[in-house]
Amino acid sequence: MQKITPPLAERLQRGELLNVNCPSREVLKRVTSRWAVLVMIALKSETLRFSELRRKIGGVSERMLAQTLRYMEEDGFVARVAYPVVPPHVEYHLTPLGQEVREQVEGLADWLESNLPRILAQRHTADDA
Amino acid sequence: MQKITPPLAERLQRGELLNVNCPSREVLKRVTSRWAVLVMIALKSETLRFSELRRKIGGVSERMLAQTLRYMEEDGFVARVAYPVVPPHVEYHLTPLGQEVREQVEGLADWLESNLPRILAQRHTADDA
Repeated sequence: MQKITPPLAERLQRGELLNVNCPSREVLKRVTSRWAVLVMIALKSETLRFSELRRKIGGVSERMLAQTLRYMEEDGFVARVAYPVVPPHVEYHLTPLGQEVREQVEGLADWLESNLPRILAQRHTADDA
Repeated sequence: MQKITPPLAERLQRGELLNVNCPSREVLKRVTSRWAVLVMIALKSETLRFSELRRKIGGVSERMLAQTLRYMEEDGFVARVAYPVVPPHVEYHLTPLGQEVREQVEGLADWLESNLPRILAQRHTADDA
């Protein structure tokens, strides 16, 4: 029987993360970068300027934060609002799409924060073995 | 008023991802690595050998898969069972802790797969602007 490949639009109704050629891979890589996760947590319920975001997220470099925000803007998760004043005033907030992905990421973040003692205890056991 | 720092064990009852010095950061980095996410999805409901895992996860190199599995074993998410036979037979499965984190990660993965068309459409809009 002949195998018919469905058109691209139809195939893309759903991504396939286990498929190396699926564009969902690139989005996964970006969304799960450590800094993207922390930006989503930091912007959960407020709009922040670059410098405020940087203070809130301990340890992020200016370069990494700028790159992370650019990717998140490209993927439609973050909105960048620039006010035409001197000195420049730029603010960032999560878009509705960004809030949706933040809800997913937050489940993971909460789980990690709550279960950290269990994970660290596990590591000790592994070291002792 | 004097500020009293609680003892380490007490402070570690919960991680703080926004704090650069919290060990949850390292766990977040490992758990959200692209390959760790895909290993959790691939091992959701089966035990697999290294070569089977590698086939299932498109595009992963032998080196990256080995490193990812080692980290996941250290954090107690993956169990490695080696059977003393010739040739060696090694199998991997998620531990109960690994299944818990997989549930969290899966929410994100499902969301990404389902919403990929919206994210890609968003990117086009950004390109046009």
